[in-house]
Amino acid sequence: MVVGSKINSVMVLAGGVGAARFLRGLALVHDQRATTALVNTGDDTVLHGLNISPDIDTVIYTLSEAIDPQRGWGLSNETWRAMESLKRYVDVRPTGSIAAPEWFNLGDQDLATHFYRTARKSEGADASQITSEIARAWKVAQRIVPMTNNVVATFVELAQDCQAGKAGEQISFQEYFVKYQHSVAVRAIYFQGAETAKPNCIDELSRAEVIVIAPSNPIVSIGPIRALTGIDEVLVANRERVVAISPIIGGHALKGPADRMLTELGHESSALGIARLYKSIASTLIIDSVDADLKDAIEREGLRCIVTNTVMSDLKVAGQLAQTTLDSVVR
Amino acid sequence: MVVGSKINSVMVLAGGVGAARFLRGLALVHDQRATTALVNTGDDTVLHGLNISPDIDTVIYTLSEAIDPQRGWGLSNETWRAMESLKRYVDVRPTGSIAAPEWFNLGDQDLATHFYRTARKSEGADASQITSEIARAWKVAQRIVPMTNNVVATFVELAQDCQAGKAGEQISFQEYFVKYQHSVAVRAIYFQGAETAKPNCIDELSRAEVIVIAPSNPIVSIGPIRALTGIDEVLVANRERVVAISPIIGGHALKGPADRMLTELGHESSALGIARLYKSIASTLIIDSVDADLKDAIEREGLRCIVTNTVMSDLKVAGQLAQTTLDSVVR
Repeated sequence: MVVGSKINSVMVLAGGVGAARFLRGLALVHDQRATTALVNTGDDTVLHGLNISPDIDTVIYTLSEAIDPQRGWGLSNETWRAMESLKRYVDVRPTGSIAAPEWFNLGDQDLATHFYRTARKSEGADASQITSEIARAWKVAQRIVPMTNNVVATFVELAQDCQAGKAGEQISFQEYFVKYQHSVAVRAIYFQGAETAKPNCIDELSRAEVIVIAPSNPIVSIGPIRALTGIDEVLVANRERVVAISPIIGGHALKGPADRMLTELGHESSALGIARLYKSIASTLIIDSVDADLKDAIEREGLRCIVTNTVMSDLKVAGQLAQTTLDSVVR
Repeated sequence: MVVGSKINSVMVLAGGVGAARFLRGLALVHDQRATTALVNTGDDTVLHGLNISPDIDTVIYTLSEAIDPQRGWGLSNETWRAMESLKRYVDVRPTGSIAAPEWFNLGDQDLATHFYRTARKSEGADASQITSEIARAWKVAQRIVPMTNNVVATFVELAQDCQAGKAGEQISFQEYFVKYQHSVAVRAIYFQGAETAKPNCIDELSRAEVIVIAPSNPIVSIGPIRALTGIDEVLVANRERVVAISPIIGGHALKGPADRMLTELGHESSALGIARLYKSIASTLIIDSVDADLKDAIEREGLRCIVTNTVMSDLKVAGQLAQTTLDSVVR
């Protein structure tokens, strides 16, 4: 392990793929045992009675180098026998039933993780405990913590009548994201349960020497974490130590619907739009080289702005980005 | 479909493998739409949050010719990737946790059935409805009905201190049957919930022209059905139309622990022992040719006794046994 900084504790607010790749880079340059990822669980869902935590699993599988690099989720060398077999039941499902959902794929090997999570939950273990056990099974040394042990569920409100429903209807995040491939317009986002949920690691967050907002969707990945009572207050109070990495590059998200969603919700789909969303809670924004011309505008919003390569196409870039991120915090 | 008899409705009280093979033979000689299997669900369990009904699935898979013929349970051409992957979690499971049970195998394709059952249950569908949907998915024409829509759970009481626990302790049927491979001595059987559970098809049972007690374990397969309020009363009242097939051949069960269990519980492990268990509810007992010398003793117990080949090693024998069974009921 290369320990390239003298920082003790680093806390990373994390979504799925982008955050996972950042954490993988961070593992190269910072003591993994002094790194905590506080991970979005607003995407969590229950399918076939199984408790599924997509962002947690993406982070753990990525750090364990078990992730499928093409898909960005699930395990490499995966098979899909259970899902293929499930198709048999689509035709016998009564009208109105959502059993045998053919739109949500779970790989045969990946199923074991959901089995374990579900079984432990039924034994009364909380999400933090279960997540730490799963991380240990995958030999992940960084501390992976769900944002809360309570249920918080992200819902999106449809902007107009579409295949997913009528304007004003709310659908679950996984329906939006997976079933409709985030192709339907939304006009509002809700985090059900966020007001009463108790955030995890809030004391550690306030004591962290560096707080990183990973390059994740600001609305539906970082949004649920920020919606938890007390998180934004801690970030504001420690703003000098908070550095964010823009998930928007050249106006677009590398993956997922962040760009469309920002526009639909009245924000600007650009690194500048990200600066405006984060300026109250972060003192520094790291943007990609292709967005260098936005640096001045971002600094006028009151953030320091660092321009570098943020496209984590390989581990080397991810490590460099992580080092730049740690170095950016004035100590 | 060959309809070889003029009987309309046949009701079969069924456990797993033996009953399934009998039903497969019955399908050759009797209108499948006029056949109802009332199937034991005392073996049902929940693993990884999934609702599992072993006997129901064995019956459906067998009738669909999808069963693995060597194992007698589960699907042919099965893979075990999910279970292999689950082993990773055995080492991180805390003391006392029974998550990631390495003793209960679920095949990748078979999982789809448990997913569907679990999802439909969470939608509020009852066991009868779910079972009929699963049977339809497998193109099974016989009517397959769980013995009750309520939860009835079979427990066995340990006869002596052993690897499974101390004498007098109760363990679940699946622990007894699968985890300890029915190698531990038992001294009592309990069907939790049987007293208050409402049996399915009790009216159809009383109207059936032929009632068959399949060659299943009399204690833990037929026992739970008989434990339901009203079932034995209907059988007694219709005893002339009830024919049982002995699951004990030459003193032994072809499969499973019926022989040991009979002895441990103070019965005789023989076709005569079966006669004594069933004589109040059945007028006819069909026994295997190897047990021909027990015919007189069985008839002295007040049962008609038919001697034939009951080892359903192939479909032809199963069909012949089914025909003999139907013919045995005096009409």
